[in-house]
Amino acid sequence: MPYYIGDVIKDEKRLVARTPEKFAETGINVRLHTPVEEIDTGKAKVCLQNGEKLPYDTLVFGTGAVVNMPDIPGIDEEGVFVLRNLRDAIDIKTYIKEKGCKKAVIVGAGFIAMEMSEALSAIGMDTQIVYRGKLPASRWDSEFGAIVLEELEKNHVSFIPGKQLQSIEKSPNGRLRLFTNGGEFEGDIILLALGVKPDSRMAVQAGCKPGETGAVGVDHYQKTSRDGIYAVGDCCEVYHRISKKWVHVPLGDIANKQGRVAGRNIGGIPARFAGIVGAQSFKVFDLELGATGLDEGAAKKAGFDPASVIVWGSPVAGSLNLRKEKLGIKFVADKKSGKLLGAQAIGNSGAVGRINTLSACLWSGMDLDEIGFMDLAYAPPFGGSWDLIHIGAQVLRKKM
Amino acid sequence: MPYYIGDVIKDEKRLVARTPEKFAETGINVRLHTPVEEIDTGKAKVCLQNGEKLPYDTLVFGTGAVVNMPDIPGIDEEGVFVLRNLRDAIDIKTYIKEKGCKKAVIVGAGFIAMEMSEALSAIGMDTQIVYRGKLPASRWDSEFGAIVLEELEKNHVSFIPGKQLQSIEKSPNGRLRLFTNGGEFEGDIILLALGVKPDSRMAVQAGCKPGETGAVGVDHYQKTSRDGIYAVGDCCEVYHRISKKWVHVPLGDIANKQGRVAGRNIGGIPARFAGIVGAQSFKVFDLELGATGLDEGAAKKAGFDPASVIVWGSPVAGSLNLRKEKLGIKFVADKKSGKLLGAQAIGNSGAVGRINTLSACLWSGMDLDEIGFMDLAYAPPFGGSWDLIHIGAQVLRKKM
Repeated sequence: MPYYIGDVIKDEKRLVARTPEKFAETGINVRLHTPVEEIDTGKAKVCLQNGEKLPYDTLVFGTGAVVNMPDIPGIDEEGVFVLRNLRDAIDIKTYIKEKGCKKAVIVGAGFIAMEMSEALSAIGMDTQIVYRGKLPASRWDSEFGAIVLEELEKNHVSFIPGKQLQSIEKSPNGRLRLFTNGGEFEGDIILLALGVKPDSRMAVQAGCKPGETGAVGVDHYQKTSRDGIYAVGDCCEVYHRISKKWVHVPLGDIANKQGRVAGRNIGGIPARFAGIVGAQSFKVFDLELGATGLDEGAAKKAGFDPASVIVWGSPVAGSLNLRKEKLGIKFVADKKSGKLLGAQAIGNSGAVGRINTLSACLWSGMDLDEIGFMDLAYAPPFGGSWDLIHIGAQVLRKKM
Repeated sequence: MPYYIGDVIKDEKRLVARTPEKFAETGINVRLHTPVEEIDTGKAKVCLQNGEKLPYDTLVFGTGAVVNMPDIPGIDEEGVFVLRNLRDAIDIKTYIKEKGCKKAVIVGAGFIAMEMSEALSAIGMDTQIVYRGKLPASRWDSEFGAIVLEELEKNHVSFIPGKQLQSIEKSPNGRLRLFTNGGEFEGDIILLALGVKPDSRMAVQAGCKPGETGAVGVDHYQKTSRDGIYAVGDCCEVYHRISKKWVHVPLGDIANKQGRVAGRNIGGIPARFAGIVGAQSFKVFDLELGATGLDEGAAKKAGFDPASVIVWGSPVAGSLNLRKEKLGIKFVADKKSGKLLGAQAIGNSGAVGRINTLSACLWSGMDLDEIGFMDLAYAPPFGGSWDLIHIGAQVLRKKM
């Protein structure tokens, strides 16, 4: 009988169906709250902290990622949170409610920070973002980052750039104080949203080779370097089809795909995971952002000679764009081959849909000439007769 | 100096920039309201009705399409309209306003009929659709057609299926009466929306070979069978990349592309038009519909052995789908190669974006295994971690 050892939060209604009892009915032995001490690969056994040893034929690491914690005093103060899992979310909500929190400081400016600034504003909290860099959403071009900044300000989220954390203290008034190299910031809660790193510790101890990124190295079948041991999700690497490198991209949709691929290979219905193109998106207030493939920096690192352009237009036919919504798309392509290398988009609507279309173009290695004349489902409510996808591809092609 | 001979409506603000005077400034001699009698290909001259003869080195036919008119008495009655160009739209609006029209009968159930039913309802007209078939939007699966029908009814547009036109008469009360094989229908205006056919008459007279569809035959460079003569837009054929046949698909985005390709080839910057995959979309009230590629019937005709499936899901992550919006996607694939052949989608949102993504997949010949694990820009406001695109491709793959 297969074992699943992990941590499932039981007190959430939606997870009731996944209790150990339910799993047992389907022949899967689920062991919750069961820390693993180490893997004895010689005897092919999983050694639990309670002394028990579970034998295995095949082992799958799905140990995920752990949050990056800043090395500063005070991160254990009550009211300092991270957001990694459902338990964290419940803890944050409960704390805000019980303590009557009014003011939040978010550290970081990635998509978790953006989404949380919207969520906290939505429940009426005064929300401030403190960030070491200049603009939010640093994966995106600074022209787009500046628009995200405007959107935050429009929604009364203040954004404080260029600050390095120094310490956190509980102040006499009961509030938390975040000290930085440029002033201090006060809040009832502090949310640290500084990204994650792969939790590859146990897999590496078991002899699985880590990749250059520090995440567990796997092949296209999710096999690690050790026979009979697989890894999936945020703890392992994934193949990037455009850079042709193994990368660490801890996103839920990729984890899902890797899980299914490993499951099929273990279960005898072979599957090969072809990798990713680096597609990603998030929403913040009335803005949506999508990105796919490589930006100029990543393209150069991967050996390409990139050119890029940003084009601005309308998500629908101009005549129907009554709200004067703008849509911006950045295209990055390789000068030598003319192939698309990446794209980014921003707008009130229509940005992520276009990034998905361009992700399919990237997936199959289309060049700008093809994309500039590709057949899309034109109707005025959904774009112009030349969509901004066509326009951007043609403008960049001319430039190169 | 190049000539443009055609009909541009001058009294619309947005077209002011395109008056003959403006064109002349850029070195193009525009002749409006200048009917052509015939083409003297021997002498390479365009013979105008006024007797003038214009010499040419290169000739481009962009004669467009003409509406299909039913062969019944009464189509010339005042108040009977078609909608082909801006002039028609202005005439319809003016007539409705001046006569104080209250009730409209639309004949046909394609995308023009759908869009007009919404437009006429929006100005408060009682609107009725009379159609020879069973369901609206016949390019789409009947399961989707039934949803369009519901949407029409929800918006108080009545849909009368299974009616063949017999005649139109002006009734004593001043209204128009449409007689059919199953009853008569009364309206202040009747809009005939029965599709179009290519206007290839003059090109054929000039010796350009028509294709099987009756539209002007062209190659990938928009050249007709006669040296120095090109054709673009609704009057000519276009290459369908999936069926590998030359087809007649009179849509504005295709016409734009063909025009640019012909222009480049004539101007000495060669371009090859790679063709279409049959992408199309329309909006009716709160529904959007998109389709691309082939349905089962067209796939069989093109020599494929198709399988298909319809999957239903949510346009956003389930937890965020507060309005309980449904999204449906139909997938058609070839049993032999596993390649996608076509797709259709319907929903309140997210349908056309997904059809564009699937159009890019079709363009590059992706198979279901690839599409089922393709990288899309996942975030809960834009889909599930397994998007309905992944789910549909995997479900159909299992079925085959």
